[in-house]
Amino acid sequence: MRNIKLTVAYDGTRYHGFQEQRGTGLPTIQEELEKALQLLSGQVIRLIGAGRTDSGVHARGQVVNFDAGDWRIPTDRIPLAMNSRLPVDIAVLSARDVPEDFHARFSAVAKTYIYSIYNSRVPDPLLRRFTYFVPRMLDHGAMDGAGAMLVGRHDFSAFKAEGTPVKSTVRTIYGLNVGRHGNIIKITVRGDGFLYNMVRIIAGTLLEVGLGKQSPEYLLAVLKSKRRELAGATVPPQGLCLLEVEY
Amino acid sequence: MRNIKLTVAYDGTRYHGFQEQRGTGLPTIQEELEKALQLLSGQVIRLIGAGRTDSGVHARGQVVNFDAGDWRIPTDRIPLAMNSRLPVDIAVLSARDVPEDFHARFSAVAKTYIYSIYNSRVPDPLLRRFTYFVPRMLDHGAMDGAGAMLVGRHDFSAFKAEGTPVKSTVRTIYGLNVGRHGNIIKITVRGDGFLYNMVRIIAGTLLEVGLGKQSPEYLLAVLKSKRRELAGATVPPQGLCLLEVEY
Repeated sequence: MRNIKLTVAYDGTRYHGFQEQRGTGLPTIQEELEKALQLLSGQVIRLIGAGRTDSGVHARGQVVNFDAGDWRIPTDRIPLAMNSRLPVDIAVLSARDVPEDFHARFSAVAKTYIYSIYNSRVPDPLLRRFTYFVPRMLDHGAMDGAGAMLVGRHDFSAFKAEGTPVKSTVRTIYGLNVGRHGNIIKITVRGDGFLYNMVRIIAGTLLEVGLGKQSPEYLLAVLKSKRRELAGATVPPQGLCLLEVEY
Repeated sequence: MRNIKLTVAYDGTRYHGFQEQRGTGLPTIQEELEKALQLLSGQVIRLIGAGRTDSGVHARGQVVNFDAGDWRIPTDRIPLAMNSRLPVDIAVLSARDVPEDFHARFSAVAKTYIYSIYNSRVPDPLLRRFTYFVPRMLDHGAMDGAGAMLVGRHDFSAFKAEGTPVKSTVRTIYGLNVGRHGNIIKITVRGDGFLYNMVRIIAGTLLEVGLGKQSPEYLLAVLKSKRRELAGATVPPQGLCLLEVEY
């Protein structure tokens, strides 16, 4: 087995998420990558993705791996070859040979997501595909203080979308920072893994604090309650970007 | 006459430029703005734009003015009212009452454009709508030195697209800077006015220097020649953005 790891970036706007949805005809990132691999290698190649980003979510550092089989292309030529076949909203940033036991999903030790809010009285049409527009002024300092309360190993049941069975709802958040850069507020969160919609629900809950509707301690109360209905809304996908997967 | 000035931002990707193209059915920025004004005011309002940005060109600070006629809306409410009617890729940033003799185009004393190049071995799918991707490494220092040679009052015939009659091809460039921010090279140019495709041809000519195909002095030779065929290519529209119009 020749195991190859790719780092991939995409504008997720027009895709129905990362994961292939067989038989639906809906475009997904995985499908486009596998199509390009098949065109280039002449083989059917199935790949494994690190994170199943949702419909409309972007990535700057998604990681996938696959068995190259009989495909004899030098690894360092894979990015250019694939980029010439991929749609313009997906790009392979790098390719590397990895040991046989490397698994994009199970070998990951940390993931970093950024949620971007455009916080100004009027929208910015040039940023609308990559930010969530919030016209009311947000207190990013309060959001930062509130976010810090989630750092550590906890049961994040309150921040998980319903209806998706998982073995455990315990995850570790290594860091959560909220910072303002001009009109853009970035929520950066790094953890060992995330439950379904977890980052978007955390962002929605921090928004309640930023708007002054809740005190920072509210985050701790929601976390302890383990009740989804006490947390904030699931904010829209276009603000979310998978920044990095660490191994 | 109640003369109102608007500052407008847009993602020009899906538009056939700023200027209304009557009878063609092609979407333009001007048409969308006039449609929103008509919906809100109940009157037919014609507006004047400061710069006729081309198909696919963006703006963060386009300026327009119009006679509000009998429309009685308070000026400060215009942005919110218009933004609720405009497509998501156009936004009114501000509205102000201006003297009767204010004319968005003729009263302008300076305009600033930015041309953005994404300069990295692999493309960035999240920036593709707003940058021109150049995979070969560019010497932005040489480009900056070359650009400085165009500053001043000159006949810019060599940097003007053919087939568009104008009274004079003399313009003044107040400043031209080329700087790198990570993988993005920004060409910022401020002048009293620009000929058709002038900024994109200047960028294409600077690219020759950045690629090492020409020395910085090439810019001066092209300028003096007044011959379009000696300048570089007209680079694609998506890298161009009208940043500011000064009065």
